[in-house]
Amino acid sequence: MTAVAPLRIGVIGVGRIGRMHAELIAHQVPGAALGAVYDAYEPAARGVAADLGVPAVASVTEIFDSELDAVAICSSSDTHVDLLIAAAEAGKAVFCEKPVSLDLSEVDRALGAIEAAGVPFQIGFNRRFDPAHASVREAVISGAVGAPHLVRISSRDPEPPPLEYVKSSGGLFLDMMIHDFDMARFVTGSEVNEVFARGALRIEPSFAEVGDIDTALVTLVHEDGCLTAIDNSRRAAYGYDQRVEVFGSEGMAVSENPLAHTGAVVTASGLQRPPHPYFFLERYLPSYVGEWQAFVEALTRGEEPPVSTIDARAPLVIGLAAGRSLREGRPVRIEEVQPT
Amino acid sequence: MTAVAPLRIGVIGVGRIGRMHAELIAHQVPGAALGAVYDAYEPAARGVAADLGVPAVASVTEIFDSELDAVAICSSSDTHVDLLIAAAEAGKAVFCEKPVSLDLSEVDRALGAIEAAGVPFQIGFNRRFDPAHASVREAVISGAVGAPHLVRISSRDPEPPPLEYVKSSGGLFLDMMIHDFDMARFVTGSEVNEVFARGALRIEPSFAEVGDIDTALVTLVHEDGCLTAIDNSRRAAYGYDQRVEVFGSEGMAVSENPLAHTGAVVTASGLQRPPHPYFFLERYLPSYVGEWQAFVEALTRGEEPPVSTIDARAPLVIGLAAGRSLREGRPVRIEEVQPT
Amino acid sequence: MTAVAPLRIGVIGVGRIGRMHAELIAHQVPGAALGAVYDAYEPAARGVAADLGVPAVASVTEIFDSELDAVAICSSSDTHVDLLIAAAEAGKAVFCEKPVSLDLSEVDRALGAIEAAGVPFQIGFNRRFDPAHASVREAVISGAVGAPHLVRISSRDPEPPPLEYVKSSGGLFLDMMIHDFDMARFVTGSEVNEVFARGALRIEPSFAEVGDIDTALVTLVHEDGCLTAIDNSRRAAYGYDQRVEVFGSEGMAVSENPLAHTGAVVTASGLQRPPHPYFFLERYLPSYVGEWQAFVEALTRGEEPPVSTIDARAPLVIGLAAGRSLREGRPVRIEEVQPT
Amino acid sequence: MTAVAPLRIGVIGVGRIGRMHAELIAHQVPGAALGAVYDAYEPAARGVAADLGVPAVASVTEIFDSELDAVAICSSSDTHVDLLIAAAEAGKAVFCEKPVSLDLSEVDRALGAIEAAGVPFQIGFNRRFDPAHASVREAVISGAVGAPHLVRISSRDPEPPPLEYVKSSGGLFLDMMIHDFDMARFVTGSEVNEVFARGALRIEPSFAEVGDIDTALVTLVHEDGCLTAIDNSRRAAYGYDQRVEVFGSEGMAVSENPLAHTGAVVTASGLQRPPHPYFFLERYLPSYVGEWQAFVEALTRGEEPPVSTIDARAPLVIGLAAGRSLREGRPVRIEEVQPT
Repeated sequence: MTAVAPLRIGVIGVGRIGRMHAELIAHQVPGAALGAVYDAYEPAARGVAADLGVPAVASVTEIFDSELDAVAICSSSDTHVDLLIAAAEAGKAVFCEKPVSLDLSEVDRALGAIEAAGVPFQIGFNRRFDPAHASVREAVISGAVGAPHLVRISSRDPEPPPLEYVKSSGGLFLDMMIHDFDMARFVTGSEVNEVFARGALRIEPSFAEVGDIDTALVTLVHEDGCLTAIDNSRRAAYGYDQRVEVFGSEGMAVSENPLAHTGAVVTASGLQRPPHPYFFLERYLPSYVGEWQAFVEALTRGEEPPVSTIDARAPLVIGLAAGRSLREGRPVRIEEVQPT
Repeated sequence: MTAVAPLRIGVIGVGRIGRMHAELIAHQVPGAALGAVYDAYEPAARGVAADLGVPAVASVTEIFDSELDAVAICSSSDTHVDLLIAAAEAGKAVFCEKPVSLDLSEVDRALGAIEAAGVPFQIGFNRRFDPAHASVREAVISGAVGAPHLVRISSRDPEPPPLEYVKSSGGLFLDMMIHDFDMARFVTGSEVNEVFARGALRIEPSFAEVGDIDTALVTLVHEDGCLTAIDNSRRAAYGYDQRVEVFGSEGMAVSENPLAHTGAVVTASGLQRPPHPYFFLERYLPSYVGEWQAFVEALTRGEEPPVSTIDARAPLVIGLAAGRSLREGRPVRIEEVQPT
Repeated sequence: MTAVAPLRIGVIGVGRIGRMHAELIAHQVPGAALGAVYDAYEPAARGVAADLGVPAVASVTEIFDSELDAVAICSSSDTHVDLLIAAAEAGKAVFCEKPVSLDLSEVDRALGAIEAAGVPFQIGFNRRFDPAHASVREAVISGAVGAPHLVRISSRDPEPPPLEYVKSSGGLFLDMMIHDFDMARFVTGSEVNEVFARGALRIEPSFAEVGDIDTALVTLVHEDGCLTAIDNSRRAAYGYDQRVEVFGSEGMAVSENPLAHTGAVVTASGLQRPPHPYFFLERYLPSYVGEWQAFVEALTRGEEPPVSTIDARAPLVIGLAAGRSLREGRPVRIEEVQPT
Repeated sequence: MTAVAPLRIGVIGVGRIGRMHAELIAHQVPGAALGAVYDAYEPAARGVAADLGVPAVASVTEIFDSELDAVAICSSSDTHVDLLIAAAEAGKAVFCEKPVSLDLSEVDRALGAIEAAGVPFQIGFNRRFDPAHASVREAVISGAVGAPHLVRISSRDPEPPPLEYVKSSGGLFLDMMIHDFDMARFVTGSEVNEVFARGALRIEPSFAEVGDIDTALVTLVHEDGCLTAIDNSRRAAYGYDQRVEVFGSEGMAVSENPLAHTGAVVTASGLQRPPHPYFFLERYLPSYVGEWQAFVEALTRGEEPPVSTIDARAPLVIGLAAGRSLREGRPVRIEEVQPT
């Protein structure tokens, strides 16, 4: 249809999430082309490369030295800061999976390099592109629900991750609820001033070994006065549960759980609906496609990608405040959290 | 069907809610009979008496001196303590509208008299008898949802009360959210240890004159570790909104809003459902019938009525703690609230 | 509130449905008063009379000779014609349970007497007053769904009646589907020209002994070209199922099944909603109140009651046509059905 | 993952539906590969070939003479018979879009050739692979709903096709309702014995010029006694409407409309849900993927593809019977329809 050359993207890290991104770029994102893949574990890169018909490069510097227009950083979290700085130096547009880092100073160092270089940047808060969640945001922007007064967000996983994962995850607030902190800022359009957190260990006692919790309820006070309640659980017996609700002066917008399909069976034992999609890869697939479309469209039009360095940083700060609130048993102001 | 004489009940105070109770007792509660009505404003008593075919008495002492089995205290809140003490002295079973008093010492004085006399007592937390809310409680008792981990309660009124009412209401926590404090105790079966409250004035700026708020979000920490989020608003543009959700180790039980009927119209402009029932008298009618049935059944069987003096006191304490949390900007332990 | 004397109504026949009508008139219908009750089985009349505080009369002529304003004919179907004629002669307003008779000539004789006498008349097609079904009709009248093109009606009972009942019931079309024939006329506002019926015996083989069916699907062609599909079953395993849908040029209006309450439980085994109301007395209670309100309001205003002699006759004719269609295996025009 | 070579498929006809099939085969069907494309309009073939990185062949015989394992016949309906016969002679497995032909003799000639050659064959009744519709079928097979007694199917398009299209479409029964005839056989697992059809022109008067209708209601009587009602409209103001319901001895299975997403906005004007997916390409995309997966899996396992020559023929016969029923105003037995 169009004579414009597609945006050529290299994917760094092709584990579960990186492979998905590579496949989406290759097949589902108009205007984008997969240019190359890299993985520290070379056989993984070669397998994905073969399946998708692109080259696997042996060194990550080949990605940065190439003619590629953009890079997708999907490797393990502890590599993000260095890769972001390298991308900034190479002048590549960058898509980066969250989190940039669990250390706020490091985050500032990486994002500072990105901003100094002026390269386009998008952080992977994919849920903003979920059609139902996005409809909630749209109902706020359009004025349909008026000024936001109360927000309720529930995020509950189908089952807890292994202890080994939890150990280096940053804990429930930085690993899991960080998506909800982003969602609260996104749907209200208002920054967060204060955080009060309560948490508990109800599901997986072994998490106590690494000082983590599996159940939490957090209150956010936004700049504009809106109050947000976020609850998280590491295990919902009925499956992955992801709901957002904004109550405002003119009404309410909600995002409910999609089910596997719209069939149902009704018998003397009741109504049986199909289960929830298993987990984030299934539930949020349309949002992953959507974030790539948004990234590519922004670059094609020469605009800023829609989820910025500010959006990459703010939820981390809220999460750090939540952790302090939990430890100290008091509400914590956002400005109390500073890079060390 | 039964040869047992009906329980004869006298109603004290036949304003809006008292008249409703009188009508329900007269016509809708098997095993109960309306014996007499009293109101400080005599014409009101005479009108209700005529409509329902019972005597109107000129003095409240006639109620206590009568052969009636029980009294329903539905007069203005500031009369409750004295009437409860009088009922205790007269040896009458008592049904009392909430609140007993806004003053914890007074509450203790009245409930102390009731307990000392050993008369049967039930406080009017009618929402416990709402079939949908009761099904949530039942799902906890039966074990269907397992141990409660997280509770979400939303209560939003269709429109704010007049400033004059607000002035003597005790404020949002004691006038409105007190029902939700009761609900949190009811559905979890666990007492509350700690309260953290945040509130705002978003709807009716004039409430500032009496130091009240119209929007609030409260976190409760229960004895068993369950975390409850309650949000309240004095005005939901779409109508009276009353929802309860318990998330537990084995699943989730929810109580959604009933609508006026189950019809819907679908056109190019979308799906149109009928509105929510206007307010509590419409929404909770089945629960008012239910609380009377429970009261009458308990007395008939010689059992304790199901919503006790403990249930009359605990939500008031939580509400007082919420008020202090809001004022002092910190979580408040329940034991910090003591009668003066 | 009003100085107008209430409409005094006598109830003839206080079996299950008649007793319900007597109770509703006594307690739930503003502007109406129960004047007396009669039943061929005197102890039944005396029991209801005692419970409701009205006289039981020993002979039905006492009803007609009384000062009562109206009579409710709720006795067995085979007595309706004579009672209607007696009511017409006595100049009483009449509410009559359906059917007037299963014999079209008899129907015409009774309704002719009513019309000749000019007494107000209402036939007991209560479902017109169900709030959800009525909202479908309203969506047609208001133009919200445009001109009706297609109608779908499902009526399925929780369990089949005893064979003894079926024997004298007139069969599925006259006993059960007759309500749906009325509904089709009601929601479309258009008479029926042609009927095509298919039926089967799938649930209760013993019905073959009396030549009846337990499952049926009927096509109606309306005067205005609308096409209606009605399905009936004598046993829905999941409970009483009553749905109406009108599809028109501008949209669709639907009436779905109300459930016992709006609670639900979600576990690993799926979503559990409460059961359907058991049967018509539970499901349609608001419609029984509604038909009495409409009757009393019409009489009070000096207007014609809203479900007329035409409405009493037309569904019977459609039912007779359906029976003939089933027997002869062809579509039957309404005008083929004539009184013998 | 697997060492098995993918099934190589050539697509004949890459108009709207053929292009979609080519894209699905290229990217979304594990175990399949797009081998080549052909279109009578060569630039169309070249465009799709370039986008998907496969050769465009200049003559359809190149497809049949190639090493391809299977062909997908997606060209205009009037070419299907010849192409099927050519495919049979070439020994290719065949996927064919519906209909084989509107002429029953031609259908029999083409399917006879396929059966004689013994080549694997699948007809494109994609809706069988819609997850919600398939769940209804599954509820019958598993016994969850018991023996089917009543089926309701509604299929309503968002807007009527142009008159030019209607002219050669075979009419509403063969062009549109044919999918529903297939669905009735699929969900019940029972053949159809008798058809009664009523139709009307309510939306697009110009269809009268070609003797077609735009609104229809059809009764099917199945071999096992089940009764099916199918309604069709060429225009639903609220969008594409596709519902299936099976009512059986043990319960009911339904397939409801999926919406664009699971968000909703509730204001004083009511509840607003997102619109229905626009039309079949959007609504049924998962079913198109599903039919290819089933085809490829069957061939890989050496089994018969799941929608056979019998399934290609039977709905056409039902459609022809429906047309005759409409013209002759009587129920038509299936055996009355014979090839000329």
